[in-house]
Order: sequence, then structure tokens, then C-alpha cells
Amino acid sequence: MTLETVSTTKAHGGVLGVYKHASAATATPMTFSVFVPPQAQAGAKLPVLLYLSGLTCTHANVTDKGEYRRLCAELGLIFVAPDTSPRGEDVADDPAGAYDFGLGAGFYVNATQEPYAAHYRMWDYVSQELPALLAAHFPVDIARMGITGHSMGGHGALTLGLTYPETFKSLSAFAPIVAPGQVPWGHKALGGYLGDDRAAWRAHDATALVEDGKRPAGAILIDQGDADGFLAEQLRPDLFATACEAAGVDLTLRLQPGYDHSYNFISTFMDDHLRWHAARL
Amino acid sequence: MTLETVSTTKAHGGVLGVYKHASAATATPMTFSVFVPPQAQAGAKLPVLLYLSGLTCTHANVTDKGEYRRLCAELGLIFVAPDTSPRGEDVADDPAGAYDFGLGAGFYVNATQEPYAAHYRMWDYVSQELPALLAAHFPVDIARMGITGHSMGGHGALTLGLTYPETFKSLSAFAPIVAPGQVPWGHKALGGYLGDDRAAWRAHDATALVEDGKRPAGAILIDQGDADGFLAEQLRPDLFATACEAAGVDLTLRLQPGYDHSYNFISTFMDDHLRWHAARL
Repeated sequence: MTLETVSTTKAHGGVLGVYKHASAATATPMTFSVFVPPQAQAGAKLPVLLYLSGLTCTHANVTDKGEYRRLCAELGLIFVAPDTSPRGEDVADDPAGAYDFGLGAGFYVNATQEPYAAHYRMWDYVSQELPALLAAHFPVDIARMGITGHSMGGHGALTLGLTYPETFKSLSAFAPIVAPGQVPWGHKALGGYLGDDRAAWRAHDATALVEDGKRPAGAILIDQGDADGFLAEQLRPDLFATACEAAGVDLTLRLQPGYDHSYNFISTFMDDHLRWHAARL
Repeated sequence: MTLETVSTTKAHGGVLGVYKHASAATATPMTFSVFVPPQAQAGAKLPVLLYLSGLTCTHANVTDKGEYRRLCAELGLIFVAPDTSPRGEDVADDPAGAYDFGLGAGFYVNATQEPYAAHYRMWDYVSQELPALLAAHFPVDIARMGITGHSMGGHGALTLGLTYPETFKSLSAFAPIVAPGQVPWGHKALGGYLGDDRAAWRAHDATALVEDGKRPAGAILIDQGDADGFLAEQLRPDLFATACEAAGVDLTLRLQPGYDHSYNFISTFMDDHLRWHAARL
């Protein structure tokens, strides 16, 4: 597991780095960013938060616009932002080049359908390969790892957090896709990557996972802007709230008045999410 | 003075907007961003900070990466980020398309040389037109206006702040060009915009302005990373410090160990600069 350092920069007393490696899971190069706060300089192993990004994003969007470094430096929290899909000339994209499937839109699944199965294995990448890589190369206490994400990345965080509560000890999401089996983005993505058998979709649908008995390590925090243009058709946090309530899952769902789907929404509530994870890790 | 709203988004309880207008100073369209914190909702007129950006930037760089909104929302400070030059098909650029002259590199002067004199009038734009526009369209108390900036924008902030202390009541800079008459970036820019008469350059050289008797409204704060690749050749804060010391100008110059010239440096010390201005406005 060789790691190439693309860049490092001092920020808020810590080190912001961008790294690249040959991924075994996706069989492509993968790039991610890591912020290591100043507490690591004393030799401490620190808790780590994975942030999964949304459609069209790379590691760079939240790294540029997420406004997480100041508080991570205060809390002593490592923050990791992976890419949203495999990339490269031999990686199959959406046939029409659409933004919501293929490159930049891996939906955090292991694809079973051709021509996507060869490289679209973001589920394994985030749950297995990336944590092992972090444990090997950074001062992380991998037993204290949380996960969060935005939109498609919120979907990834919820499905991974519900499936692997021993791996992801804290869980939150910003404006997540919570029920891909019931919304257009999800129909396209899960159909394209996993095929037409909807039973297979349930393992990648946070609402279905809760219905089917999966439980997170602890409470879940979700923030959602009520001026988010995707709220009514694609996000539907009400579906997840209903499932959580029926199952006794401790969900804090906050509808934030006036906020949209952008990084201005994410950065506004980033502090709350960082404190949520730090308190549980 | 008609203002076109390009976009508005809720952020940190306030409103982040991008606006466009036909500038009388530059005779081009000009774009800028404004963050109005939540205190304005009560009808208050608020202090305002202008942030001038560096080479190659538009209003968008600091708006995306500056991490100023959280604390501006706490302090009740309006934050305004203009563009760095006129733009448009009929605006003359560097003949070779270089990054350090022409588009994205107006150096906050009124050009006297052809073909730049027609549009490159950023001095008038920032000192006259933009404040009038802000006073007309936003809840600003224009008597409480400060100015800051980065690199070329730090040069703009210092020269404008020293020349118009009645307009700019507080002053700071991040890694500014402080003596353009003595460094390569400045030789090219001031020569290109103002011509070969070096006497004319002194009005746009912060170190020369202090030597020639100009005084800021109050104390000046400058942060400078000591790992900044431009420090020794282009920035030279020591030249400004010497002039300030000789003139009795109250300068706090902080050399920050390990920091480079990027927005990771700026965002790290943004809070300190916002508090510096809020305390003086």
C-alpha cells in the first residue's frame, strides 16, 4: 500500500495533505485528502472522521469549501475526504455523460453489472481499503472512526454506518439520499450498478436497512435545508425518520430553514457535526 | 447604479450574494460577493470589510475558501470581495497572457498607459464606486469600513488604506506586496500600467507612501507565512517594517512559521483579521 503525496500544506496548525494510491478495490488510482490536526505532533493516535462527498464532487470540494479545519484542530480530529468514484480512461462512465451516474457518482456500492463491475467498488474501498490505508500511514486510532457525508455521500455514510457499526462508531449526514429505492437518483444508480433485482437494492438503501433490522453504533444526526431543491423528489428524509421511529433508532433530524443543498449549508453546520462525532469517538 | 443579483444563498444565518453591475470606473461589468450577517435582519447598519484578492483570483476564491462567514456572523461584520481586474473581450490583457499582469492582475491602480488606461481603473473602483454602491444597496454603515487583502490585494489594501484613512478606518493584509517599486511583480505591473516614470509609482507603493508621509487611520496588522515561496523575492515585508518603524507607524508584523501563500494560510488567520477590524470599526 504505497502512498504518493500529491501536496501538503500547513493549515490551522495542522497539515492538510492530498494523497494518491493504486487502489486494489477499484483497480484505479484513487485520490483523497487528509487533515491531521496539531495534536498529532505529540505522537498521539487520534480519532478520524470520513466525509463522503456528493454527486459531481471529488475530494477537493469539501477540502476547499467545508470549513472543517479550524474546529478539527481544536478537537483533535483527523478528517478524510475520498473521491466519489473510480476515475481513468478505462473506467466506464454514464453512456450520456450524465452527472448522476458513472464518474463522480459511484453511489458507494460494489457494482455487479457490466461494464461497471470492474472498477465501481466504492463500498469495499471506503469500508475496507481506505481505513487500512489510514491506519498504516496516518496517526489514526482506527477504533475511533466515524462517518458522515453529503447527499449521495450522506447515503454512503448511512448505509455504511448501518452495515458496519463496529467500524463506524459515530454517524451523521448532510442532506442525505435516505431511500434510493424510492427516488429517481437511486432508481438510476442502483439499477445501473446492481441490476433490476430490487431485493439487492435494499442493502444500499438506508431506510430499507433500518426496516430490515440493521442498527447504527449510536444515535444519528441529519441536517437538511428546507430550501434544498432536491428535498421533495430525491432526498425525502421523512421516509428515513418514519423507519427510524418504527425501529427505535435514535435519529436527530433537523430541518434548517432557508438553507439549500450547497456547501454554504454544509459549512454552516459542519461545526455541529464535528462536535457530534468528537463526543462519540 | 443598478445591481444585478447573480445568486443568493443562506450561510451561517446570513446571506451570501454574488452581484454584477456596469461599472462607471472600469467601463466593464464588474462582479463581487457580499456576505450580510444575520444582525442586518433587525434593520441595523453594520460595519463592512473589503477584501482585495491576489493575482489570478476573482471574487470567488476567498468566497469559497476564505472561511470568513462563521465569524462575520458572530461579529456582525459585512464582508465584500470584489474582482481583481476589469474583464471582457475588449479589455486588454498581458500580451503573452501572463498571470501577473492584465486580466486578474489589475494591481488596484488607475492605469495611465495604453492600451490599459481605458478599463484598468481599479483604484477608483475600490475607493469610490464600490463603497457608494455598497452604501446604496446594502445595510452598511459606510463610515465604519475597513480594508484587507492578500498578496497583490494586500498591496491594494495598504496603498488604499494609507491614502484614504478617512475612508478605510481599519487596515490589515495577508502576505502583501509591500514595495512594488523594488520587486519584479511591481516593476512589471507599475511599469505597464503607469509608465516608466518611477515618481508616479510611489503613490502605489506602500513602503514609499509611508516614507512620503502618508499615515493609516490606526494600527496595521500583517500576517506572513515564512514558508511562502514569494516571500524573499516579491513580498519583502521587512522593507515595509523598516519604513513604518522610521515613521512611527504602528505595525504588527507576524511571521507565521510553516505557512505558505495559499488560502490555507489565509483561512487560518482570517479570524484574527476579522477580530482586528471589528474591534476598530
